[in-house]
Amino acid sequence: MDNDPKPDPNCLFCKIVSGEVPASFVYRDEDVIVIDDINPVAPQHRLVITTKHWPNAARFAGSADPAVVARFFSTGAQLGREQWEQGDRLVINTGPAGGQTVDHVHMHVISGRQMTWPPG
Amino acid sequence: MDNDPKPDPNCLFCKIVSGEVPASFVYRDEDVIVIDDINPVAPQHRLVITTKHWPNAARFAGSADPAVVARFFSTGAQLGREQWEQGDRLVINTGPAGGQTVDHVHMHVISGRQMTWPPG
Repeated sequence: MDNDPKPDPNCLFCKIVSGEVPASFVYRDEDVIVIDDINPVAPQHRLVITTKHWPNAARFAGSADPAVVARFFSTGAQLGREQWEQGDRLVINTGPAGGQTVDHVHMHVISGRQMTWPPG
Repeated sequence: MDNDPKPDPNCLFCKIVSGEVPASFVYRDEDVIVIDDINPVAPQHRLVITTKHWPNAARFAGSADPAVVARFFSTGAQLGREQWEQGDRLVINTGPAGGQTVDHVHMHVISGRQMTWPPG
């Protein structure tokens, strides 16, 4: 794994970053995009996605520029706070047992209802 | 909120950081500690906790040194990968609706069973 992973032509999120697949964009900059989840589990459910194709959180956190890692986390945390003042849940899945469905790192930002425990 | 929050004498996690309250430590450095959750929801369930008293993820991400934010995230992501090769889930709750029970930023690192969806 190098430090500058190339887009994967078979990856849904790479296609959204490039514009090949449309999505409802909330925000975008050089490092991250934010879109609405197409299968929301709460009144507000968005995804923070890296613009580069990091396959999971550990690879991303271990190899990317720490400033980009901090921006990814901060984007989700700030968005959660803006979505609903009563609270939010940030969720990152890795691997099949974690429920990861797209192998491109992303954070779920979920709010708008009372979240329960355990978290799945 | 300044950039160097002082320990809160009434905060459970500040007491664990200081040693006043015992905990099962997995890791510690200047910026973060990792302990076993006392109410695990899966075979492996640990908490990554900042050594400083940031009340929630948004305050932490918005005011702390980005290198510390990246380390916090990276510690959880790497730990998840080490805990179980089949996958893991990282969860950060903010506010009552998010299920936050201690007002000191922390990340749940959960693995060892199939996680379900929605995440609470």
